[in-house]
Amino acid sequence: MNHDLVVNRLRKGFVLVLLFMMLASLAVAEEAVVDPVTAAIEAAKEEMQSNINIVWTCIAAFLVFFMQAGFAMVEAGFTRAKNAVNILMKNLMDFSIGTLAFFVIGFSLMFGANKGLFGWDGFGLSGVEGDGSDWNWTFMIFQTVFAGTAATIVSGAMAGRTKFKAYICYSVFICALIYPIFGSWAWGGLLNGGGWLENLSTPFCDFAGSTVVHSIGGWLALAGAIVLGPRLGKYGPDGKAKAIPGHNITLAALGVFILWFGWFGFNPGSTTVGDGEIGRVAVITNLAAAAGAIVAMIISWTVGKKPDASISLNGALAGLVAITAPCYTVTPVGAIIIGAIAGVLVYFSVIFIDNVLKIDDPVGAVSVHGVCGAFGTLSCGLFNAEKVLGIGDANGGLFYGGGFAQLGSQLAGVGAAFAWAFGLGMLMFTVIKVTVGLRADKDEEIKGLDIGEHGMEAYAGFQIFSST
Amino acid sequence: MNHDLVVNRLRKGFVLVLLFMMLASLAVAEEAVVDPVTAAIEAAKEEMQSNINIVWTCIAAFLVFFMQAGFAMVEAGFTRAKNAVNILMKNLMDFSIGTLAFFVIGFSLMFGANKGLFGWDGFGLSGVEGDGSDWNWTFMIFQTVFAGTAATIVSGAMAGRTKFKAYICYSVFICALIYPIFGSWAWGGLLNGGGWLENLSTPFCDFAGSTVVHSIGGWLALAGAIVLGPRLGKYGPDGKAKAIPGHNITLAALGVFILWFGWFGFNPGSTTVGDGEIGRVAVITNLAAAAGAIVAMIISWTVGKKPDASISLNGALAGLVAITAPCYTVTPVGAIIIGAIAGVLVYFSVIFIDNVLKIDDPVGAVSVHGVCGAFGTLSCGLFNAEKVLGIGDANGGLFYGGGFAQLGSQLAGVGAAFAWAFGLGMLMFTVIKVTVGLRADKDEEIKGLDIGEHGMEAYAGFQIFSST
Amino acid sequence: MNHDLVVNRLRKGFVLVLLFMMLASLAVAEEAVVDPVTAAIEAAKEEMQSNINIVWTCIAAFLVFFMQAGFAMVEAGFTRAKNAVNILMKNLMDFSIGTLAFFVIGFSLMFGANKGLFGWDGFGLSGVEGDGSDWNWTFMIFQTVFAGTAATIVSGAMAGRTKFKAYICYSVFICALIYPIFGSWAWGGLLNGGGWLENLSTPFCDFAGSTVVHSIGGWLALAGAIVLGPRLGKYGPDGKAKAIPGHNITLAALGVFILWFGWFGFNPGSTTVGDGEIGRVAVITNLAAAAGAIVAMIISWTVGKKPDASISLNGALAGLVAITAPCYTVTPVGAIIIGAIAGVLVYFSVIFIDNVLKIDDPVGAVSVHGVCGAFGTLSCGLFNAEKVLGIGDANGGLFYGGGFAQLGSQLAGVGAAFAWAFGLGMLMFTVIKVTVGLRADKDEEIKGLDIGEHGMEAYAGFQIFSST
Repeated sequence: MNHDLVVNRLRKGFVLVLLFMMLASLAVAEEAVVDPVTAAIEAAKEEMQSNINIVWTCIAAFLVFFMQAGFAMVEAGFTRAKNAVNILMKNLMDFSIGTLAFFVIGFSLMFGANKGLFGWDGFGLSGVEGDGSDWNWTFMIFQTVFAGTAATIVSGAMAGRTKFKAYICYSVFICALIYPIFGSWAWGGLLNGGGWLENLSTPFCDFAGSTVVHSIGGWLALAGAIVLGPRLGKYGPDGKAKAIPGHNITLAALGVFILWFGWFGFNPGSTTVGDGEIGRVAVITNLAAAAGAIVAMIISWTVGKKPDASISLNGALAGLVAITAPCYTVTPVGAIIIGAIAGVLVYFSVIFIDNVLKIDDPVGAVSVHGVCGAFGTLSCGLFNAEKVLGIGDANGGLFYGGGFAQLGSQLAGVGAAFAWAFGLGMLMFTVIKVTVGLRADKDEEIKGLDIGEHGMEAYAGFQIFSST
Repeated sequence: MNHDLVVNRLRKGFVLVLLFMMLASLAVAEEAVVDPVTAAIEAAKEEMQSNINIVWTCIAAFLVFFMQAGFAMVEAGFTRAKNAVNILMKNLMDFSIGTLAFFVIGFSLMFGANKGLFGWDGFGLSGVEGDGSDWNWTFMIFQTVFAGTAATIVSGAMAGRTKFKAYICYSVFICALIYPIFGSWAWGGLLNGGGWLENLSTPFCDFAGSTVVHSIGGWLALAGAIVLGPRLGKYGPDGKAKAIPGHNITLAALGVFILWFGWFGFNPGSTTVGDGEIGRVAVITNLAAAAGAIVAMIISWTVGKKPDASISLNGALAGLVAITAPCYTVTPVGAIIIGAIAGVLVYFSVIFIDNVLKIDDPVGAVSVHGVCGAFGTLSCGLFNAEKVLGIGDANGGLFYGGGFAQLGSQLAGVGAAFAWAFGLGMLMFTVIKVTVGLRADKDEEIKGLDIGEHGMEAYAGFQIFSST
Repeated sequence: MNHDLVVNRLRKGFVLVLLFMMLASLAVAEEAVVDPVTAAIEAAKEEMQSNINIVWTCIAAFLVFFMQAGFAMVEAGFTRAKNAVNILMKNLMDFSIGTLAFFVIGFSLMFGANKGLFGWDGFGLSGVEGDGSDWNWTFMIFQTVFAGTAATIVSGAMAGRTKFKAYICYSVFICALIYPIFGSWAWGGLLNGGGWLENLSTPFCDFAGSTVVHSIGGWLALAGAIVLGPRLGKYGPDGKAKAIPGHNITLAALGVFILWFGWFGFNPGSTTVGDGEIGRVAVITNLAAAAGAIVAMIISWTVGKKPDASISLNGALAGLVAITAPCYTVTPVGAIIIGAIAGVLVYFSVIFIDNVLKIDDPVGAVSVHGVCGAFGTLSCGLFNAEKVLGIGDANGGLFYGGGFAQLGSQLAGVGAAFAWAFGLGMLMFTVIKVTVGLRADKDEEIKGLDIGEHGMEAYAGFQIFSST
């Protein structure tokens, strides 16, 4: 080995070592520098996305809150002037009482770590208070307005003859117990062990609450209307149902527009994520509402000879209620069909309940929220098309090749909701009836609950003619 | 060459090589590490900004949807009680039908890749369905509520004497064809080839739709009111116009507040970007509305002796309509002047149409949306001040040194809109008149369309005195 | 030194040097690459967060704007039909005039760099115009709607007997001077030197404006009602107060729901930051409103025998006004207690002002906004619990161990607000009285201001019976 060769080899060796180590250094650098960078970028994104989600979810919650105004206008407008104060007070109070009941008890039963059939911790947001920016504050306001919606649905079916005290009692029960316990079955959260409907082999699908919110409200309303009996004069001596027209269709229409507006918080807000899916769920929701209104109008025109405003307005609500469960998982065509069917369903359901079952539901709450809520929930089993939408690996709906699995789970959820809400509702209203009293005095009902229950009238200075 | 020297050189050489390669490695590292980092940060920002834009644009869309409630209250409040149900049904249906027509056909004509005079692809969001987060979902809901606004404007001018069937027919045509085709000329999108108004050498400027939405609606309303003829009793045997007061100014005022509220979605939402320009467009919009209301009130006080509520409310709307085109490109002072002029304009336009043209427009829709929309669009040519606002390189407005180029393009757009909407409107309403029928029976009109067309009244239990 | 050794040392040396330099290179790389990366990520976050804040603050501003509709409905609904147009015009005009006055003058007095007792620069957003995305545009729209709220409160107490001209005059003064100057004391901004209430050793706490907005409005309303005197027939010959019922409780209830909805912009929006605190402030606000409504209802039921709707609705507003100052700094339990106390307070305050002071405040504006605003502001001194909430180092409230320091500052602010607003209010209304005139003619008042002042009526076609 001569010297030059040695030096030469040395040189080559060093160059190779150097190249190797350069590469190593780059690799190390990449591992040491880029990974923390990626992590830092991801952390920053997560923080920003979390704030976007909060802004969106809070605004959605406020829109859903505003639905209280919509329900107030619909319920007042579709009933008589002499009972307007009563129904408005009811709306104010069910939300106010519901807010406290849900904050103190309901939220924890619904979302607390699951112990058996419902959650049980975090009462009054305990454990969250120390962190003033915690997501649970946002989640609480969002869930509170949902609970308030379930409660407020009931009163429409009980309008015009219910003691005010009774409203107060049932508002507490619904927001503290009945709504949240069922809610924990469907929406308790898999992180908390999950409710039994979430743990079905094909989990129950109710994205924004056709069943959890609307059917629960609707079946409670049905129980209330049954226990209460019809308004005086609703059924003639021949047993025939008599229409008792609402006193202000303008306000009822305003109420429907407010509800439709609020539903853009209800359905798209249920993603609780500020991304492009908001737009999709909004389009789907809007299409179903439009289809519901149009088809209900057509049916009323065909069957009833004239395009009826009350029915068309209820048709829009029917479409909205029906699309609430499947709004995340169906195609535009699916949405239009679901809304259209809901528009048909609400028409015949109102007639059936009114004339065949002879249950007096002044605003059609049972048909809109109970029946169309159940239908909408079942429609997930028929129309779910996650793969088509690019949001899942397979389509769950029967019509999209998903078989009967999803439909089975939907039936389980719909059935459970009916049994729970209608059963407990019958019990609750009967207990209220025999304790504090459910129905206003006959005399009070004739003169109007506003005078009798509240000592005032809604329209001082206007002359109002009251039949019955 | 002695050994030490060799080793020495070797050492120096290696050190130099090493230093060089260290630097190279840094450079490479910088190229390899920093550039992807910058790119990653930019990608993260883009993703976040996209979500912010979606949240903002969706909420803006919901606010614009809520304007339907505003139009319903304004149109019902400014007309008579006996026709309230009819006008409300019309509002519900033009949006519902408009939603479907625009989804299925209109959107594609307006925003599809341009083939000649309008777009032609993406019907029913085809091609988008596979991506559940695609921006087009958000864009669709935003554009749907705009189309709905154009359609709903028309009915105000036709209130009180139109067959309900006719409303249905024209809602389809407006949302499926008339609105979207004109829309494709002004807003089709340069990526799609662009409409001819966008491709003018100085592009036509209509930021949020003074012309595209409001004037189109207003000129269609004008055609409708002409073909329809005035309400019975509107013009006495002497040909003098008689005021037919609205039945609920409280609700009309509520409607104007709702519209003003919704306009914060309409104008600032038209940025479709969640950044500081929202605040600017909101300030500009609000100033113009305020100026419009104040000046219309002053004119009514000066000319008409008393500060008139209907005129002041319409003054606010006039300011809002006028600022809709220039809201992005004018200064606060410009906004105040534009709003103020609109307030003057709406007053004299209402009188002119009522008394000189003798066209019966019950709510002043032609003046508010047609006339003030045209004025607002022209005002871009006078007041555009992009450079002053720091949003462009040059000011387009005549008063800001931009010459006549912008004004010329504005005139082209305004003229095209009138020709298109008024021309097609005359044709459409005439065709409707001779086919399904446009005007309600005389008897129906006297008793009220609510009874005649819908078999119900809006205010059951209230005694209502109806002149005519 | 043999060759192999040399080469060996050389090798070792090089390896050491190489390792050292690799490490150095990594260190340099980290310093050179990671720090700018961190900075770049922080800059990106800041930009994104700023946009999130703008979107949130603008939407909050729009919600607060919508409160104008709420005030209009509450004030119209709680007063008589014959004065409805007048009160609606007043609502439209105080916001319109307020918008211009605050834009041109008020904003600068409130937020301009502090020169003595108020700010003085940036009139008409001068200096901002060149940057079309500047935060101040967003800040301007947010602050404008707050100023409009203060102005609109006043009219409720002056309803049914005030000349329309007088409304116009005071709207200018309130939005241009009275509101912004007090505002500069509490909210002028420490960057601008700060107002004296901000510079107290324990700074005055009024997060969203119980005092700055509501009490200022309430005390001005008190001055207005005193200078004006009661409505004809309000006090009988025996001096006893007579109830004058509102003409539309349905719309009053709608107004309260709209206000509650808007308050979700008012309070959570006052963070002007899009993060998790929005949710917390919303929960706190909602709890206080609910507690206020419930407790006011209970009091009216207990004392007045029936659950009164007007009182319950005012109870919700009382809770909302009271929680406006402490909404950021109190716990849920604190919020419920504050709302509940406000519900008691509003009941007795209304009776006291009506029957003992014999001041005629038709809608209870002084009690709701003045009294409950003052109470809510003081409640910060009792209930502030920053440490408990994890948003500060110490609790400021007396009940949370904070001593009397905060309470002292609150008393100073509440006292200053009363002296300023009531004092200037008495002066202003007296000057208006002796110049343009404050009170409508007796004849006009009896027939209704709508006919007298505006030449129209709100409900054409309806028969209205008007006592007095």
